[in-house]
Amino acid sequence: MMMLVTGGARSGKSRHAESLLSQYSRVCYIATSQVFDAEMAERIQHHRDSRPAHWRTEERWQHLADIITPHNDPCEAILLECITTLVTNILFASGNPDEIERWDFDALEREVNAEIDALIAACRACPSPVVLVTNEVGMGIVPENRLARHFRDIAGRVNQKLAQAADDVWLVVSGIGVKIK
Amino acid sequence: MMMLVTGGARSGKSRHAESLLSQYSRVCYIATSQVFDAEMAERIQHHRDSRPAHWRTEERWQHLADIITPHNDPCEAILLECITTLVTNILFASGNPDEIERWDFDALEREVNAEIDALIAACRACPSPVVLVTNEVGMGIVPENRLARHFRDIAGRVNQKLAQAADDVWLVVSGIGVKIK
Amino acid sequence: MMMLVTGGARSGKSRHAESLLSQYSRVCYIATSQVFDAEMAERIQHHRDSRPAHWRTEERWQHLADIITPHNDPCEAILLECITTLVTNILFASGNPDEIERWDFDALEREVNAEIDALIAACRACPSPVVLVTNEVGMGIVPENRLARHFRDIAGRVNQKLAQAADDVWLVVSGIGVKIK
Repeated sequence: MMMLVTGGARSGKSRHAESLLSQYSRVCYIATSQVFDAEMAERIQHHRDSRPAHWRTEERWQHLADIITPHNDPCEAILLECITTLVTNILFASGNPDEIERWDFDALEREVNAEIDALIAACRACPSPVVLVTNEVGMGIVPENRLARHFRDIAGRVNQKLAQAADDVWLVVSGIGVKIK
Repeated sequence: MMMLVTGGARSGKSRHAESLLSQYSRVCYIATSQVFDAEMAERIQHHRDSRPAHWRTEERWQHLADIITPHNDPCEAILLECITTLVTNILFASGNPDEIERWDFDALEREVNAEIDALIAACRACPSPVVLVTNEVGMGIVPENRLARHFRDIAGRVNQKLAQAADDVWLVVSGIGVKIK
Repeated sequence: MMMLVTGGARSGKSRHAESLLSQYSRVCYIATSQVFDAEMAERIQHHRDSRPAHWRTEERWQHLADIITPHNDPCEAILLECITTLVTNILFASGNPDEIERWDFDALEREVNAEIDALIAACRACPSPVVLVTNEVGMGIVPENRLARHFRDIAGRVNQKLAQAADDVWLVVSGIGVKIK
């Protein structure tokens, strides 16, 4: 069982994802965020504080298929948050941050796709229910900088790929989950 | 009866909100906008021109609970537009505009929440039907400036709070109201 | 039969629009994009490569009513992509690109509306089914530059106009078409 929860920033995606797993007494929370600065650390802490205390957290920013495996406990649900951060991680791990204007986004997207394809295969083979949280980033004005434009293209295509593979898809708006698949 | 209408810029939120009150012969329109410049004045005038002539307008940019009271006329519906502007008003009333980079957004959000909590309590105690209009601002790329990032976080959480309290919630897309609660 | 497909960037709008016409053996694809730079050329090529080979393409960046006529073949469906580009085309054809800060957006919007009104009338008079693809651009933070602000206002109002005239409207999120009208 693979579920995708999408929505804008601060739309209540996390809470909705948690509510989908409320009947599970054990949840493995996979956090994909890497801490780059104080603002990020604060956001992560804020999220951590709002999670149920009995959850266990795995911090894993890449190679998710190593942790979502056929050997997982089917009684322990998995919540992975979030896909958009995972995409960012891959871009910055492979591209040189000092030469963003020379990044080859086609090559980077192939790396992202390899990770996402492996993740989808892992979710399908894993006996645990898996909820993936992602972000809607394409409903604003075309961004002025090239990285942001390419990022939203890649993130958008990744969301399509995941939604196609998922059993259920939810769009969260103002905290309300709208089931769209 | 508390209703929330959300949607992007120029999505037709106002018109949809008005349509929800079409059976009321008397409507009190609460405008939260403050005029800071000519562009804003033009936008306000544009909105004003498109409202039915028989509505009365109250301009109130803060302390909404003073105007939405248990003593209101149950036959006069209330339309408040818009929450996002109200949030902006509070931020700029409490924070020094010349020192935005040093704003304490946690403290500011507490002030916003105090206003929103009072507003929700007022809507619940008020015998008139109240329609609140707000904006979706979190479905684009992460903004580059800190104020915008914090603003969309606060606005997003406010929308969640209001949607949870509301009896009905509508997402407006291209002028079409989609009832999501 | 006039259908509108809206959604964010890379939300899968094109694919959904194509799926709506899957039963038609002949499709006229009207591409409104003009090539201004290499990035744009690459995006157009990417779209072109993903279209069925048996479709015929018309490149037409304005005056769409010349090509969508009462004399069209009712067995050949029309897919027009996209409205947002059409709006951009009109703005830049009428406004001087070197003096954007002095553009009269009210006058420009009148020109946009004339084109859109003619397009709607043409769709209604045309015996072929017509699918129009547009973009949601108003769900992010208020853009900092004036052109972007006015553009999203105009694009938003155009979307409302088209959705009101359309028989069916779809919002595409992560590749999933949600029928909203």
